[in-house]
Amino acid sequence: MRIMGVDPGMTRCGIGIVESNGGRRISMVAVDVARTKPEMAPHHRLLMIWNAIEHAIKFYKPDVLAVERVFAQENVRSVTGTAQVAGIVMLAAAQSGLPLGMHTPSEVKAAVTGNGRAEKAQVQLMVQRILTLDEPPRPRDAADALAIAICHAWRGGALHMEDTDRSQHGGAGMLPRAEGEDLTPAQRMWANAERLSRRHGAVEPKKP
Amino acid sequence: MRIMGVDPGMTRCGIGIVESNGGRRISMVAVDVARTKPEMAPHHRLLMIWNAIEHAIKFYKPDVLAVERVFAQENVRSVTGTAQVAGIVMLAAAQSGLPLGMHTPSEVKAAVTGNGRAEKAQVQLMVQRILTLDEPPRPRDAADALAIAICHAWRGGALHMEDTDRSQHGGAGMLPRAEGEDLTPAQRMWANAERLSRRHGAVEPKKP
Repeated sequence: MRIMGVDPGMTRCGIGIVESNGGRRISMVAVDVARTKPEMAPHHRLLMIWNAIEHAIKFYKPDVLAVERVFAQENVRSVTGTAQVAGIVMLAAAQSGLPLGMHTPSEVKAAVTGNGRAEKAQVQLMVQRILTLDEPPRPRDAADALAIAICHAWRGGALHMEDTDRSQHGGAGMLPRAEGEDLTPAQRMWANAERLSRRHGAVEPKKP
Repeated sequence: MRIMGVDPGMTRCGIGIVESNGGRRISMVAVDVARTKPEMAPHHRLLMIWNAIEHAIKFYKPDVLAVERVFAQENVRSVTGTAQVAGIVMLAAAQSGLPLGMHTPSEVKAAVTGNGRAEKAQVQLMVQRILTLDEPPRPRDAADALAIAICHAWRGGALHMEDTDRSQHGGAGMLPRAEGEDLTPAQRMWANAERLSRRHGAVEPKKP
């Protein structure tokens, strides 16, 4: 299954495409960051980002789109812009007939690091390990987009699909019950960490 | 000048089209509310609203789009949805090559009632009077969309255009210096109220 993850943002919008075999193994297909300048009119910025999203969908033909669920943060202005970008990404999914997955930032962090409150650098590092890349994806928006795609593959589409029409997408991407030998050391490490955190019932442990 | 005002919302998205001769006189061309059900997947809701916006642009051929500027309110969830809808409306403007105007709720209220903190019913009533309609536009989202379009016509596009490319749109819609006899009684009343509130330097007076 090919998953396109999008980290919505007006100034930098991360787009990451990964391929998952349904197990823990996952590989990177492509990553890009659509950038727009704050001096531009906001609707023109949205159009630029839209073009990048459309291009990625047409070129990489993902089976599913995953986007970060936007919450209000301290900066209201940037949240509004982020939600506007999320809106056009969701629209792109619907127009292309793609199922849509939405995951909160803490779900994404928990999926790739085992800790829902992980630092950004840790997410970047784990994305590098999980995808066995030579160096961490930069900028962070690129890593975040890949993390969202990984999260979607591992958390399972069925549980969090924001889609009522696509029943065929059912169990694809569910957490695999048997984790075999096809894991890299980093992936095995992650699987162990996840098992541990599950045993202790602490998916999102508090910061020490 | 034909202005399409949009009151963004996931459940009810108001779309109002007015024709302005550049003076105070303004008439309604059409009004509609795009509705979607909360049970639907959010990206499918956005697609439905998108289709309504696209249809209105193609059918009524506005010269400019005006949309309410979204701010964070008490209800974070609904703000996110509203911003997502605003995002696709802004995208529609950019894709159609239309200039985009953005106005805050209090700017809209001040434009049509002379009071930036006016009640919703007052906005509805003034929209009816300004457009010389037999009854107030219902639901409120319809009235709000028309109010946004009226606000854009009267406040002047040049001051608030979120557009860097369309210099030809310059002064169109600016507040006219000479307010002539082509005013309806309601329009004359409004003009007087506005003059008064300007003289007292109170565009947004506090609630009594």
